[in-house]
Amino acid sequence: MIRHVAIIGAGLIGASWAALFLSKGLRVTVCDPAQTALDKLAPFITAAWQDLAQLDDIAAAPPFDRLHVTQEIAAASLGADMVQECGPDRIAIKRQIVAQIETSLAPGAIIASSTSSLMASDIQDGAKHPERILVAHPMNPPHLVPLVELVAGRATDPEKVDTLRAFYDSIGRVTVVVQKERVGHLANRLTSALYREAVSLVAEGVATVADVDRAIAHGPGLRWAFMGPHLTYHLGGGAGGYRHYLDHLGPTQVARWADQTAPELTPDLIETLVAGIEAATEGESTADLARRRDAALVALAKLKRTLGA
Amino acid sequence: MIRHVAIIGAGLIGASWAALFLSKGLRVTVCDPAQTALDKLAPFITAAWQDLAQLDDIAAAPPFDRLHVTQEIAAASLGADMVQECGPDRIAIKRQIVAQIETSLAPGAIIASSTSSLMASDIQDGAKHPERILVAHPMNPPHLVPLVELVAGRATDPEKVDTLRAFYDSIGRVTVVVQKERVGHLANRLTSALYREAVSLVAEGVATVADVDRAIAHGPGLRWAFMGPHLTYHLGGGAGGYRHYLDHLGPTQVARWADQTAPELTPDLIETLVAGIEAATEGESTADLARRRDAALVALAKLKRTLGA
Repeated sequence: MIRHVAIIGAGLIGASWAALFLSKGLRVTVCDPAQTALDKLAPFITAAWQDLAQLDDIAAAPPFDRLHVTQEIAAASLGADMVQECGPDRIAIKRQIVAQIETSLAPGAIIASSTSSLMASDIQDGAKHPERILVAHPMNPPHLVPLVELVAGRATDPEKVDTLRAFYDSIGRVTVVVQKERVGHLANRLTSALYREAVSLVAEGVATVADVDRAIAHGPGLRWAFMGPHLTYHLGGGAGGYRHYLDHLGPTQVARWADQTAPELTPDLIETLVAGIEAATEGESTADLARRRDAALVALAKLKRTLGA
Repeated sequence: MIRHVAIIGAGLIGASWAALFLSKGLRVTVCDPAQTALDKLAPFITAAWQDLAQLDDIAAAPPFDRLHVTQEIAAASLGADMVQECGPDRIAIKRQIVAQIETSLAPGAIIASSTSSLMASDIQDGAKHPERILVAHPMNPPHLVPLVELVAGRATDPEKVDTLRAFYDSIGRVTVVVQKERVGHLANRLTSALYREAVSLVAEGVATVADVDRAIAHGPGLRWAFMGPHLTYHLGGGAGGYRHYLDHLGPTQVARWADQTAPELTPDLIETLVAGIEAATEGESTADLARRRDAALVALAKLKRTLGA
């Protein structure tokens, strides 16, 4: 049973995990070498709590008695059933963090890395207990987006994957076990693919940044909140389903793939993208935009629950 | 003023346009050479009406007195202010349809093609009045997905683009004017790019069809219902916004793009995809799945209205 989670790193991801774990009744210890990061933790959790309270029957105020903070990794890991590692995404730092966790972590406990760009096999390399290390990658913000991607490394014990999957499932996450280690795991490979064409269309003058984003949010993005691309094209095949679609329209996809190339991310293109997003957001701050995003995610989560979707 | 629309083709797209236009108070004439297609029109509109009634204050039953059907294109076009062309996506057929429309259409009226794969410049080639021909491409189903992509051809009068944009805007559509003619316009290029990686991940054994779709619908797809990829990464840059993101994490995107390739759509892969969607949908029919999709789209449209998103 996982009842006490240590979180290494109090950035946006670590703080969001902390809010989620607290809302699910867990004991949480957060570690960050920077006191300034730890100081921001309580205000972040208090703000996130308003959103979480709309989704779960939880206490009016965050249970700060179940939250502890420390600047020492070894102190944080002592007594934890699981470590949710959220440090900087650089392999040398990850290995240092793992080494410090292992000085105090109980042998049966699990180390789950939130890394978006590194591989579990590389992180566990050189560890004392590599079999208990794996990737558990969330999407931002983890307390509102349910997906958690689990990826085992070469040395990971499959039982640890099962244990962790059951844990995340039990706290309302949607888990996917990725079968092979790849840069970007699963979801970020998909977002990158979409982003490549989103940038390319701007680079080639086909559409503005604002229009590309409008097209997604009032077009295909509406369906993607409920169904992935495979199911979308299954329905595109009508009564004949996916086979009919692939047999008849598969070649049009192949033709479009051949017509798409990766843009070169030049300084000029970066200026165009930045100017484009400034025009699209009309000076609204990222903090305000993020608040609106979170409000939308909460409302959508409630809606999906009603629909059983 | 566009008050009377002729729709050429009574397939899924044409029928959906008809339901939408009727709900917005327009007079609609639908033409299809196949009487069987015309026979399915009223039942389709009656079913769609239940969804539309949740979004607009409309009469309890569809106003079939404003709907006319015919098997003759010239008869349909007579007196129409605009023709929404929804015929088969083959250039020779499109040109034949245009020629027949032009035998009766008033000179000032507009011909808007719903084509997803052809170019306005090719469709208008050889027409008597090429300047009034353009692409107005919806996403399926048009009565529930608001995006309409407008694309002018070489000979299109820009004033016709403005007129049509104002028309679609006036009936609650979200219009985007695509600046250059490209295969797939804007939205289908973006969906194709995502789909390429969705297929590739299955082809390479990284994940199942079901898990790819789950990852989207419980991960990034949630955000895309409200914001496009540019804005998503703008928020990924925190207080520093899009410039910070591009300067610091742009290279990780470029690296992911380099790591992604187009899969070969072999017969074996098609079998894997079909088996994968069968496992994912557990025998639910495409008709039932489409009904659930439409119910979700209606609920989401209402939610977005509440949020002003």
